[in-house]
Amino acid sequence: MADTPEGLSYRDAGVDIDAGNEAVRRIKSLVASTRRPEQLDDIGGFAGMIGLPSGMKSPVLVSCADGVGTKLLVAIAAGVHDTVGVDLVAMNVNDLICTGARPLFLLDYIATGALQPGIVESIVAGIVDGCRQSGCALLGGETAELPGMYAQGHYDLAAFAVGVVDKDARLDPKTVQPGDVAIGVRSAGLHSNGYSLARKALLDPEYGGLALEDTFPGTDASVADVLLTPTRVYVKALAAALARGGVHGAAHITGGGLLENPPRALPEDTAVELDLSKVPPLPVFEAIAAQGVSPEEMRRTFNGGVGMMLFVAPDAVQGTLSALEGAGESGVQMGRVVAAQGAPTVRFL
Amino acid sequence: MADTPEGLSYRDAGVDIDAGNEAVRRIKSLVASTRRPEQLDDIGGFAGMIGLPSGMKSPVLVSCADGVGTKLLVAIAAGVHDTVGVDLVAMNVNDLICTGARPLFLLDYIATGALQPGIVESIVAGIVDGCRQSGCALLGGETAELPGMYAQGHYDLAAFAVGVVDKDARLDPKTVQPGDVAIGVRSAGLHSNGYSLARKALLDPEYGGLALEDTFPGTDASVADVLLTPTRVYVKALAAALARGGVHGAAHITGGGLLENPPRALPEDTAVELDLSKVPPLPVFEAIAAQGVSPEEMRRTFNGGVGMMLFVAPDAVQGTLSALEGAGESGVQMGRVVAAQGAPTVRFL
Repeated sequence: MADTPEGLSYRDAGVDIDAGNEAVRRIKSLVASTRRPEQLDDIGGFAGMIGLPSGMKSPVLVSCADGVGTKLLVAIAAGVHDTVGVDLVAMNVNDLICTGARPLFLLDYIATGALQPGIVESIVAGIVDGCRQSGCALLGGETAELPGMYAQGHYDLAAFAVGVVDKDARLDPKTVQPGDVAIGVRSAGLHSNGYSLARKALLDPEYGGLALEDTFPGTDASVADVLLTPTRVYVKALAAALARGGVHGAAHITGGGLLENPPRALPEDTAVELDLSKVPPLPVFEAIAAQGVSPEEMRRTFNGGVGMMLFVAPDAVQGTLSALEGAGESGVQMGRVVAAQGAPTVRFL
Repeated sequence: MADTPEGLSYRDAGVDIDAGNEAVRRIKSLVASTRRPEQLDDIGGFAGMIGLPSGMKSPVLVSCADGVGTKLLVAIAAGVHDTVGVDLVAMNVNDLICTGARPLFLLDYIATGALQPGIVESIVAGIVDGCRQSGCALLGGETAELPGMYAQGHYDLAAFAVGVVDKDARLDPKTVQPGDVAIGVRSAGLHSNGYSLARKALLDPEYGGLALEDTFPGTDASVADVLLTPTRVYVKALAAALARGGVHGAAHITGGGLLENPPRALPEDTAVELDLSKVPPLPVFEAIAAQGVSPEEMRRTFNGGVGMMLFVAPDAVQGTLSALEGAGESGVQMGRVVAAQGAPTVRFL
């Protein structure tokens, strides 16, 4: 027993309750800016509460969970903590909307070894930005101080999003059919996938050997800026395209890349033929490929310039492209669904 | 550029897609055992889908997020990974039910440096156990392999639960009134709070110096078993008590302990007077206090043997105690709500 004048305390054990309270104070007004009309006052304080949007016939809740992956290591090394907050929201809501749902609310989990209120505030500012871009309320979350779990200055982020869709309005792969056109919605870069490989190819002295402050080859931006470009939030763009009609399916191009994600929105006995030459090349992928990553590995790891793929009736292609453009995104007609045998696949032309 | 015969791959960068797929295969049937009738087939594969329970007039969604904290470091050191899965669910659903809601679904986030499918399976088995105890569907989740983010063998867990309550059935602090009786529902030990302090007090050579394989003082169990005793899941017990009527409020005794949590379920201008001598002592708290942790620090860090506190009308006390016992929990009449001035507080008698 090693008693001190005040006794052994939680603070002695590495947990700073005051830093936690300071972090909470800083983020309170930010979070309030995401409030939706369906929210109820959080009367008990143990959980967030929200009603359903009015006018739904048979509401179905849609939910997903995701993190940002080792893109965080770039953010930590660069000391830039807001863009990964946007990424965190985007990774979740871009999955969610592939069902036809609209995001309703999101909760975040921030874990670190020693809470730094300024960093937490910066992360939450990014999360709030992402929530506002996707129209969802930041309904709650957990900020955990875990001494001994994370290296100095490291943190991890996860989030969970819930959306709602009328049962009959769900996007069902069975409605995608041969002849439908594949429209790629352009990505802003790596988004939040493949960073373990990207970091090795670009930053490892044995490969690219770039430093975060270097100018990224083929751009005017720094390596840090290119690697921390936030994931596009496609909520408004997909909503605009769905409102036009003729969109049969949507696939978020996330982990598994252009090889594994498009089939998740396709029915049995189909394939999609994709012509990647239609997608304007992005310097970040060219620089990674130049380090000896094979085309196959590129396609199953990265989005290759396509953040989301829509499967659209041929007569809805122009309307979809216009809707995307009106929402600030850029669509590329890059392939077609064809009849095939068995589980859906991608064929690269 | 350091090219290899096959080129630089995601596996070279420390991400093992096969281990990920193996982990997914192992947990699939476990997860299926939590299925609820409201669930829809996951037609797109990008998100989980579930309808609302039938017969609700004005459904309100209730949601919270939480992790297990540094209890994970004990689980990792002991090589026991299932009980923390139960903890993860309990920490969320015990918060959620304080609103009067019933849990509907949960999603988990498991992050680690290098995926070990057997460990992931064990964690998920615990999560599934917790979901079954609380009647909620494990609707989805994310298992992230993040090389360089976590120390060898370390992982972090977070979860997020959604429940539903009819708007008029919410537990509102305003209904708790002077004269209501405080019933403590006994905890199984530390549950999942205060582990940074508990580990320092019990395991640090400068303090208790216990090893995980030692017999815990005052018990027949090992230190590992005492420290990894899972958090009680109070869902069925609280539902049984609510069905009897007369329960005005419920407070999960989580971070902040017996000092900070009871007021979260109380209205302005009240206090609750608690007599901690009514709660049978638990060896784990006695051993921590013996290392020089002050009574004040104990009360604001640990649950002190009370996992949940109910505020109950005097004529409902016997019915509530019977309902708790019928659900396998043990309630202790330990105090009373009194009139006071300003923000609600706890007074220890």
